[in-house]
Amino acid sequence: MRHLLSSADLSTDEIGAVLDVAEQMSELSTREVKKLPTLRGRTVVNLFFEDSTRTRSSFEIAGKWLSADVINVSAKGSSVSKGESLRDTVLTVAAMGVDALVIRHHRSGAAAQVAGWVDAAVINAGDGMHEHPTQALLDAFTLRRRLGNLAGRKVAIVGDITHSRVARSNVLTLTALGAEVVLVAPPTLLPPGVDGWTTTVSHDLDAVLPTVDAVMMLRVQRERMAGGYFPSPREYTIGYGLTRDRLALLPEHAVICHPGPMNRGLEIAAEAADAARSLILEQVAAGVAVRMSVLYHLLAGEADVSRRIGSAA
Amino acid sequence: MRHLLSSADLSTDEIGAVLDVAEQMSELSTREVKKLPTLRGRTVVNLFFEDSTRTRSSFEIAGKWLSADVINVSAKGSSVSKGESLRDTVLTVAAMGVDALVIRHHRSGAAAQVAGWVDAAVINAGDGMHEHPTQALLDAFTLRRRLGNLAGRKVAIVGDITHSRVARSNVLTLTALGAEVVLVAPPTLLPPGVDGWTTTVSHDLDAVLPTVDAVMMLRVQRERMAGGYFPSPREYTIGYGLTRDRLALLPEHAVICHPGPMNRGLEIAAEAADAARSLILEQVAAGVAVRMSVLYHLLAGEADVSRRIGSAA
Amino acid sequence: MRHLLSSADLSTDEIGAVLDVAEQMSELSTREVKKLPTLRGRTVVNLFFEDSTRTRSSFEIAGKWLSADVINVSAKGSSVSKGESLRDTVLTVAAMGVDALVIRHHRSGAAAQVAGWVDAAVINAGDGMHEHPTQALLDAFTLRRRLGNLAGRKVAIVGDITHSRVARSNVLTLTALGAEVVLVAPPTLLPPGVDGWTTTVSHDLDAVLPTVDAVMMLRVQRERMAGGYFPSPREYTIGYGLTRDRLALLPEHAVICHPGPMNRGLEIAAEAADAARSLILEQVAAGVAVRMSVLYHLLAGEADVSRRIGSAA
Repeated sequence: MRHLLSSADLSTDEIGAVLDVAEQMSELSTREVKKLPTLRGRTVVNLFFEDSTRTRSSFEIAGKWLSADVINVSAKGSSVSKGESLRDTVLTVAAMGVDALVIRHHRSGAAAQVAGWVDAAVINAGDGMHEHPTQALLDAFTLRRRLGNLAGRKVAIVGDITHSRVARSNVLTLTALGAEVVLVAPPTLLPPGVDGWTTTVSHDLDAVLPTVDAVMMLRVQRERMAGGYFPSPREYTIGYGLTRDRLALLPEHAVICHPGPMNRGLEIAAEAADAARSLILEQVAAGVAVRMSVLYHLLAGEADVSRRIGSAA
Repeated sequence: MRHLLSSADLSTDEIGAVLDVAEQMSELSTREVKKLPTLRGRTVVNLFFEDSTRTRSSFEIAGKWLSADVINVSAKGSSVSKGESLRDTVLTVAAMGVDALVIRHHRSGAAAQVAGWVDAAVINAGDGMHEHPTQALLDAFTLRRRLGNLAGRKVAIVGDITHSRVARSNVLTLTALGAEVVLVAPPTLLPPGVDGWTTTVSHDLDAVLPTVDAVMMLRVQRERMAGGYFPSPREYTIGYGLTRDRLALLPEHAVICHPGPMNRGLEIAAEAADAARSLILEQVAAGVAVRMSVLYHLLAGEADVSRRIGSAA
Repeated sequence: MRHLLSSADLSTDEIGAVLDVAEQMSELSTREVKKLPTLRGRTVVNLFFEDSTRTRSSFEIAGKWLSADVINVSAKGSSVSKGESLRDTVLTVAAMGVDALVIRHHRSGAAAQVAGWVDAAVINAGDGMHEHPTQALLDAFTLRRRLGNLAGRKVAIVGDITHSRVARSNVLTLTALGAEVVLVAPPTLLPPGVDGWTTTVSHDLDAVLPTVDAVMMLRVQRERMAGGYFPSPREYTIGYGLTRDRLALLPEHAVICHPGPMNRGLEIAAEAADAARSLILEQVAAGVAVRMSVLYHLLAGEADVSRRIGSAA
């Protein structure tokens, strides 16, 4: 692994390796001293052209727990607003001696472009409607912890598939791990080429819920409502929300995920978000562990994992 | 101490303990190497829903001098703007493995709510018009250093009491330390229930000044002027400003405080702000020491204080 | 050196000393572990009243690689917006126990004012149209590396001299090192007193280019176009842009600099920016090394340089 740009780049074995090291990393959060010397003297830059508290903070904590220097660069207040091109901004930041660039950008494909320009390791922290591979890894981590091996498991991803980088990355990663993915959405929120994906498609959430091991609710991007993708928030909830009534349709062992931030009462009811079977906060915690593992794999070299991460700093 | 939410939560002994450790901490700022290993591997998040350069920076420096990892999260650019509830934002941040949440919020009572939701230690860094307990502690620290034991001392707090969290917290802390507090304000800027407070009230600054050991001038929030609380800035200064002429009314030993940022020429004249008896910059320096002490008390456990903070890192 | 306010404050020997230590610092960026213990326990505050991704990040990385605690304070969201004076803001920040203040401000002379108010070391990171001394040092560092001793070398600075702090600082530093500087600009973009400078002036870029060892293109500040300083972007490029055609006019050994961010196609063509002889990214890398050297000189005391920076942390 030189970069992490797309979930498609990761083989099943590589996903397994990332999740296994993430398990070791997650043990750290239970300690009083959450600090490993692994990436001491390495510099990680969070280069965010879109705001995202949770993703930026998660990478920042992951880097700091590994003893890296972490620098936050926000597009607000950056050279970008002075008309500089993305390429020049990225080359400039990289020239300062950066080991890893964590990039979030509103344009699909931006991270892959960036990787072509710099020597630093590039991590795609969300590019437009394209991908968000660390989100898929943390989802897989969370599901594997609760459900065990994901081969043969069935996961429903529900909501605005068209605009969701979370959905795209999750389909790739979950499929690679042998899970079956079913996409549940109104026809207006399914992308044109979805027939070619390794998934099934449904417009009937009630029919799907009894058959799944996990349901992943996607955030409704309120700013898209004006686009006419669905008639009203209320109708969306009626058709595709994980309402209190629908909770009863899930098998007893089935779990609930949401990448956050949630619109409670819209795509997910409070009863679902706060249910014992909801893994939403475990997903957040997994995010730090998985990002530590990704930074470790990209920056710590080939040395023996257990030797490098095993000793508390 | 599990949280620091209100100055009312602190007993006189606890206040004394915080101030005593702050004395040890403040010694650090005189060293070339300002670093203690005390909170190495602990994670402190500054979660600010209102801007505050001075308070955020003070906590950030306090945390870093104690070797903690400090993460700044500003409500601008946070999930908050995407409609997420305060509870979900806080639960998300806490789930990342945070040991202490320093929270500033525009709503009175927000910090106490937050403390009910998370396992992390919560420090109230200002909640609406309610409280700002570390400000009261740093004021007490500064006054104690200059005046000695505060029992029997008289402190005037002057200005907009109604909207001031600084006033509320200071009344509680100073009273607990045995000081007498007199509130000086126009009737429009005194809260309804003030008769029940353990203070006296006056509308006559000229009569009060000769009787005090310290006078604490509150900032006039210019955005409140439109509310009709006082006729004009000029009239406010005439009635309640610490003008050059009024300086002569203070006893020779009496000192001047202001929580900052100051409106010079409005609630405080330049001659007062820059007087030898002004402790305003000492208050700022005390802020770092007091916040180190608070972080220490909340996070460093029960071990012997002198052992834990005594050795330079 | 107590502060770094103006390039005029540095003797030729002092410039040499800064560049020499910067050479040692720049070696660090080639290591896997980019960390020196030199400034452990020192606190550096980046106090930026204007946005600047590249300068702020460069200082932040420089401070962190030297193990300093670095705090970013942006004027957005600061007390400034609450009407506090610059002096009170600066005194407040300094009172927190800061060892160095890196200040960027829109007003010429602001950094020198600040240095008069505080005990901390003050570094001018750009004050209005006045100076930007670390930019001049990093330019000198970059040119010296490529061209060797700069005595007798000829450098053209091209563009909006009037509003450029980069130009002012570079004239001082390059002249101190014995280089000859020629300013190339339309008459409307030359400051009134330029005849008194230790430079020559030209309005004919085509005539100058064949005579130089280096050409430094200044950024056109698009917000100044409305000021009528030049008729149109296209005419500016025709008269003063480093176009593809003009590249051929440069001597074979001559190099190209630009402080960034670039307006490609306006003051500099892509062919020039990306040419093998372009040092633009080397300038960025030099920025970190030079700022490390400046922080070192201001904060690390009188001890033997090689002893203090020689051992990796």
